[in-house]
Amino acid sequence: MVESIRRGVSETARLEAFSDGVFAIAITLLVLEIRVPPPEVTHEGAGLFRALLGLWPSYLGYLISFITIGVMWANHHSMFELICRTDRYFLLLSVLFLMCIAFLPFPTAVLAEYLPQPAGRRVAVAGYSATFVIIALAYNALWWYAVRGGRLLAPTADMSSVRTISRRYLIGPTAYFLSFLLAFVNPWASLAVHGVLIVFYLLPV
Amino acid sequence: MVESIRRGVSETARLEAFSDGVFAIAITLLVLEIRVPPPEVTHEGAGLFRALLGLWPSYLGYLISFITIGVMWANHHSMFELICRTDRYFLLLSVLFLMCIAFLPFPTAVLAEYLPQPAGRRVAVAGYSATFVIIALAYNALWWYAVRGGRLLAPTADMSSVRTISRRYLIGPTAYFLSFLLAFVNPWASLAVHGVLIVFYLLPV
Amino acid sequence: MVESIRRGVSETARLEAFSDGVFAIAITLLVLEIRVPPPEVTHEGAGLFRALLGLWPSYLGYLISFITIGVMWANHHSMFELICRTDRYFLLLSVLFLMCIAFLPFPTAVLAEYLPQPAGRRVAVAGYSATFVIIALAYNALWWYAVRGGRLLAPTADMSSVRTISRRYLIGPTAYFLSFLLAFVNPWASLAVHGVLIVFYLLPV
Amino acid sequence: MVESIRRGVSETARLEAFSDGVFAIAITLLVLEIRVPPPEVTHEGAGLFRALLGLWPSYLGYLISFITIGVMWANHHSMFELICRTDRYFLLLSVLFLMCIAFLPFPTAVLAEYLPQPAGRRVAVAGYSATFVIIALAYNALWWYAVRGGRLLAPTADMSSVRTISRRYLIGPTAYFLSFLLAFVNPWASLAVHGVLIVFYLLPV
Repeated sequence: MVESIRRGVSETARLEAFSDGVFAIAITLLVLEIRVPPPEVTHEGAGLFRALLGLWPSYLGYLISFITIGVMWANHHSMFELICRTDRYFLLLSVLFLMCIAFLPFPTAVLAEYLPQPAGRRVAVAGYSATFVIIALAYNALWWYAVRGGRLLAPTADMSSVRTISRRYLIGPTAYFLSFLLAFVNPWASLAVHGVLIVFYLLPV
Repeated sequence: MVESIRRGVSETARLEAFSDGVFAIAITLLVLEIRVPPPEVTHEGAGLFRALLGLWPSYLGYLISFITIGVMWANHHSMFELICRTDRYFLLLSVLFLMCIAFLPFPTAVLAEYLPQPAGRRVAVAGYSATFVIIALAYNALWWYAVRGGRLLAPTADMSSVRTISRRYLIGPTAYFLSFLLAFVNPWASLAVHGVLIVFYLLPV
Repeated sequence: MVESIRRGVSETARLEAFSDGVFAIAITLLVLEIRVPPPEVTHEGAGLFRALLGLWPSYLGYLISFITIGVMWANHHSMFELICRTDRYFLLLSVLFLMCIAFLPFPTAVLAEYLPQPAGRRVAVAGYSATFVIIALAYNALWWYAVRGGRLLAPTADMSSVRTISRRYLIGPTAYFLSFLLAFVNPWASLAVHGVLIVFYLLPV
Repeated sequence: MVESIRRGVSETARLEAFSDGVFAIAITLLVLEIRVPPPEVTHEGAGLFRALLGLWPSYLGYLISFITIGVMWANHHSMFELICRTDRYFLLLSVLFLMCIAFLPFPTAVLAEYLPQPAGRRVAVAGYSATFVIIALAYNALWWYAVRGGRLLAPTADMSSVRTISRRYLIGPTAYFLSFLLAFVNPWASLAVHGVLIVFYLLPV
């Protein structure tokens, strides 16, 4: 009994540590996609200051992606106050979820490159939102697998707060899908949905 | 006695944490090999959407490498439920094993670059499979060193499950070697072997 | 009661581990901005030795950024000897603080590129200092949120050492703002302020 | 008393975790310096296989750097079985030591680029060895600071094994300095010294 508790705790601990590692690395790699303006650009009249200002799409992508992953990390963190066991399939779902999180620097870089260009803007924002639809679905799959029938929940977990969390999480995929559709109509409104979702998931349950 | 237990536990804990770090970083660096399509490419008619679709070999490499490392991480994780001590040679074998894991972004990038090109495809897939042959051999060396004569096993480790694991692990190098040979005949069949192995190692023991 | 203690401890532990992860990754990514001199450059007479010497602005940026983040990490570390709880807003402030830390490789790379060029030097140093103004403000926000009314402090925290720390931390944003202004007058003096601040924050409280 | 033990343990734990993070990241970033051969190169007759073989200096640099850092990590690990406290200056020395470790991907990349070129070979190998001289000095500084007068040693630390370790560590800077001098005479012999040192530091005390 003590043994199984110890194992359970240590298993979750290692999964949490591994997830935190991937979160921390993915979030920190985002900065590598912001490129130093080459001297040729800055010497053509405008100077370094304007060249740095011209990187605003990179800063915006960094900001949205960093804060969204950060908030997701904080929620993942809360999730593991209720979940106290793991199993093979939960580990696999975690790997798939982390695969989506770790992918994020790529659509963020595409967004930064194509946001100022009318030609690719819609596709870049749509691809960015589509990535979050998939992340949010993977996040929900993780949660539902753990919660269904109380499979991996701590015995002390309060079922009414579990239900509240479940409802809140379901809003994610829906809202990101809305943001995906909106990208084809108005890419800026689509990005605004990302901002609204950050605020929503920040609010206490 | 208490001292030796404390040391043993803490030594394994730090090795596990270090291994998890390398796993997490290697897995997350994979995304850096997916390059944003440059504007010149996307303006030549096709547009950003087709350019993004054209990166499918990068997505495929990301997918296979990420899930395989993820499953390997989960198994490494299970391994340390049975292993409870370390020694100098086990640390060295771990370093060699992690060296192979951390190398993986390179053959994955080669795969992504040359998979669409008939000229380099066979070599790229063969090199990718060869890397996994070496990873699987290093993984087995780690396991055999720990298990031989119960050297680093927990006193409570169940020997019949140890034997089952040993048999399962041996399938890895053999199957990846088959995949390596297959690459010269049919690269796509070779990649399919990777998919089959992911499913195989996901199944519970 | 025991439950709440366990939660409190584990929450801080995971936040500390996540912060350490971002600190460690941001600090280690700095080296990626130092580029190997291409063979064309080294063959034009001077040779590799002079080309490597010519990278001094990269080494200088690496040095200042690495030690500053390192000292900040050590202080963040001390901060968590006094803070023993977290809440949603503290997690959010931590994410914002880490977003500034993780951004640092970019202004460091800009500094390394433009420090030898009279045209961009002032803007590069000013941007570098401005980043530290924001980092120092975020660091203070973190501290003030935790300390205000003893919100997240350990019950055993000594209030006079809390007040001493508060005063010390306030010097950061002020001095970095001075360094920012100084960049437009004399960029080298501005960088010297960074050196002085490293020494200041190294001294024991 | 209990409080001070708890703090001491937790301080060392966080320093160890942070160091492990930097070790793990620096070691894993090494692979980013191995570049995929561009299609232009592989199509000029030779093909991908020969192009991949032609990257041997990159593989060699990866191998030496990875195993050396790995062995250093294992020894750092053993060091913390004897050290059980930290202080401000020890944290600073640790930051300086990690700054040298995290720098290693750069001289490794220089080595990989210039090893095949007679013009830059000596300088590249000398720079690589010089980096290890500094790493070994920083490592010794760390150890001596902790050991001097038993400052940070565990009360249970066996002084005769402390003295043995001190003697072994001193060999590092000396041997790497020899390797540095040798680089100007025979770069290959210089690299061989690196191999010998890996084996030496692997042997049990």
